[in-house]
Amino acid sequence: MPSISQKGQAMPASPIRRLVPYAESAKKKGIKVYHLNIGQPDIETPEIARNAVKNADIKVLEYSRSEGSEQYRTKLAAYYAKQNIQISAQDIIITTGGSEALLFAMGTVADVGDEIIIPEPFYANYNGFATASGLKVVPVVSNLETGFALPPIEDFEKLITPKTRAILICNPGNPTGYLYSREELVKLKELVLKHDLFIIADEVYREFVYDGTKHYSIMEQDGLDQHAIMIDSVSKRYSMCGARIGCLVSKNKEVIATALKYAQARLSPPTYEQIAAEAALETTDAYFKEVNQEYTLRRNTLIEELQKIPGVKVPKPKGAFYCVVELPVADADDFARWLLEKFQDKGETVMVAPASGFYTNPELGKKQVRIAYVLKREDLIRSVEILGKALRQYNLN
Amino acid sequence: MPSISQKGQAMPASPIRRLVPYAESAKKKGIKVYHLNIGQPDIETPEIARNAVKNADIKVLEYSRSEGSEQYRTKLAAYYAKQNIQISAQDIIITTGGSEALLFAMGTVADVGDEIIIPEPFYANYNGFATASGLKVVPVVSNLETGFALPPIEDFEKLITPKTRAILICNPGNPTGYLYSREELVKLKELVLKHDLFIIADEVYREFVYDGTKHYSIMEQDGLDQHAIMIDSVSKRYSMCGARIGCLVSKNKEVIATALKYAQARLSPPTYEQIAAEAALETTDAYFKEVNQEYTLRRNTLIEELQKIPGVKVPKPKGAFYCVVELPVADADDFARWLLEKFQDKGETVMVAPASGFYTNPELGKKQVRIAYVLKREDLIRSVEILGKALRQYNLN
Repeated sequence: MPSISQKGQAMPASPIRRLVPYAESAKKKGIKVYHLNIGQPDIETPEIARNAVKNADIKVLEYSRSEGSEQYRTKLAAYYAKQNIQISAQDIIITTGGSEALLFAMGTVADVGDEIIIPEPFYANYNGFATASGLKVVPVVSNLETGFALPPIEDFEKLITPKTRAILICNPGNPTGYLYSREELVKLKELVLKHDLFIIADEVYREFVYDGTKHYSIMEQDGLDQHAIMIDSVSKRYSMCGARIGCLVSKNKEVIATALKYAQARLSPPTYEQIAAEAALETTDAYFKEVNQEYTLRRNTLIEELQKIPGVKVPKPKGAFYCVVELPVADADDFARWLLEKFQDKGETVMVAPASGFYTNPELGKKQVRIAYVLKREDLIRSVEILGKALRQYNLN
Repeated sequence: MPSISQKGQAMPASPIRRLVPYAESAKKKGIKVYHLNIGQPDIETPEIARNAVKNADIKVLEYSRSEGSEQYRTKLAAYYAKQNIQISAQDIIITTGGSEALLFAMGTVADVGDEIIIPEPFYANYNGFATASGLKVVPVVSNLETGFALPPIEDFEKLITPKTRAILICNPGNPTGYLYSREELVKLKELVLKHDLFIIADEVYREFVYDGTKHYSIMEQDGLDQHAIMIDSVSKRYSMCGARIGCLVSKNKEVIATALKYAQARLSPPTYEQIAAEAALETTDAYFKEVNQEYTLRRNTLIEELQKIPGVKVPKPKGAFYCVVELPVADADDFARWLLEKFQDKGETVMVAPASGFYTNPELGKKQVRIAYVLKREDLIRSVEILGKALRQYNLN
């Protein structure tokens, strides 16, 4: 029997998926599981997007262009202009989700054995894309005490080697919810200019910023045109994760030309979903305002309730819809499994994402979990109540 | 300015795309261009698939499962059972087009620097996926004189090294239209068993076989369970290229577990398109019969007309909807460009795909072009008429 590639063996399994069998057997036992573990919003996808698909007059479901439809990219550029990002349709390649944009970006800037520096904790699938691309992720540690702010630039500089090709940030951050300030972005800019690196900014949560704060895009920074690559997606913005429509944006023409070759090899992004994504651009400001208010309330509720539990530490995130929470447990992986396997309160329990999967060194996240606030407020209140009871019982054992 | 990766630089640009600017300027001059160059069928996508999308009751367009929806995979297994392929839903991973299935397969079986043997001429994007995966394509030459039959097994054996991980075939073939016989598949089976290799079979044209011949799948071969990986797609079968729904099929559980890790990293295939693909499984036999008759007529028409042109050589393909044609020219790339740049007959010209892009050594395809018969018969007749006139004029120059 021929053997699997070393790369395939090294591909990380999703850290959250490890818990899925436990969640499934809990459900089989009739236990209701509140999913605090995933970033699948319950918000309705804008009707305008769904109707565009319903009303699409398609006889032959043809390939679109590899770089995405001209019309969609043109409208997308206009959307970005409203966000203070001045780009043209030629600077955009439509991808199959932000995931594919990340793969294209890594393949464009780095070769096998090259290094990418990423502040951790970070979105676990960055590991998967790096492994698939043969790259080494070099983590720079941010921590809960500072709310996961940008680590000192000296920490980055210590890690830069001749193999360093790029710095990858997620802004606002999954899993941290941290929103980088203008000052932090300027520091990063100086760093990448000094060392002639690329900076890849995953901005898929750009609309999810709270308390009147502003999101600063990597594309707004002067002097970074040849260095900046923005990753975006419609998944969270319009609650259409299943669309798998994202994009890679850069004013560096060689980056776009190279990413386009990757795009041509896979022919095109999906057609129906591009129709939905294009129509979604007409979504009213009222929708975003309402969604933002709802998430602000959810976040406030979640953080307030969590902070009532003795021993729990959680910074109040300014963006995205996650927070990283330190729990009074020695091993959050074990606790998360125990929640599903052994615990229930009136037939209900919660599923959380152990943060170890978001760190290169799992020890760093050993006491932490990521909680997503994508559920209704009453469900969040009940979830945290369950979590509090569970912690008391777990720590008695 | 930071430099692009060597891999990115090495990524092949699509050989057909090189001609696109010439086609666009021809069109701008008001010239009608018959597209013999692409495999985008003009056949209508089955209404049942389009209606399923129209009628989908979706409020939140959620992620599907990384391996594709359970329901779709279960129905797909039943579809394969009718094709004499005995597999279960667990042996299938739904991918974003056959393209992604090829990427997952390569990443699963081979590491950077490993070799994959592919009979050439072959589908040009295999080069793109191999480059993206850091693999070396080792071509084994098939030729027009035998109709592009399987090269002698000795030719394969000469190319096998310790780095050889797999043999990749396309059956029926793009660009050749060649349909491998049962005997040829048995020879390949003995070869991969002898050398403990994987065999990856791209069978996306399985329904397109003519003259009452039968398609033999790699999955039908006894004793190959641990070696065989099938690549499939709904693109051609239901004329829904824009859906980007394909799959990777294997009874080797390690292959599936590894491909699943790649699938999890990118979260899920598109949701609307899976709905379309699932509904498409209800397509009636009458649809396929009608499509098959239409393609048989188109092929017969195309081949008959081509064979009337002096100096043209073309084997009659038994499958897919392409043929590779040898033209009486020294440089088919030049001729193809000339057709768009310099030639017209009553305001019309044709676009063909130079075959050089389908060979690792472009010299081998220097006199050949690929022609797709995805146009109406009257358009095919007119196209070949134009081609004949063009050849006469080109050779007078």
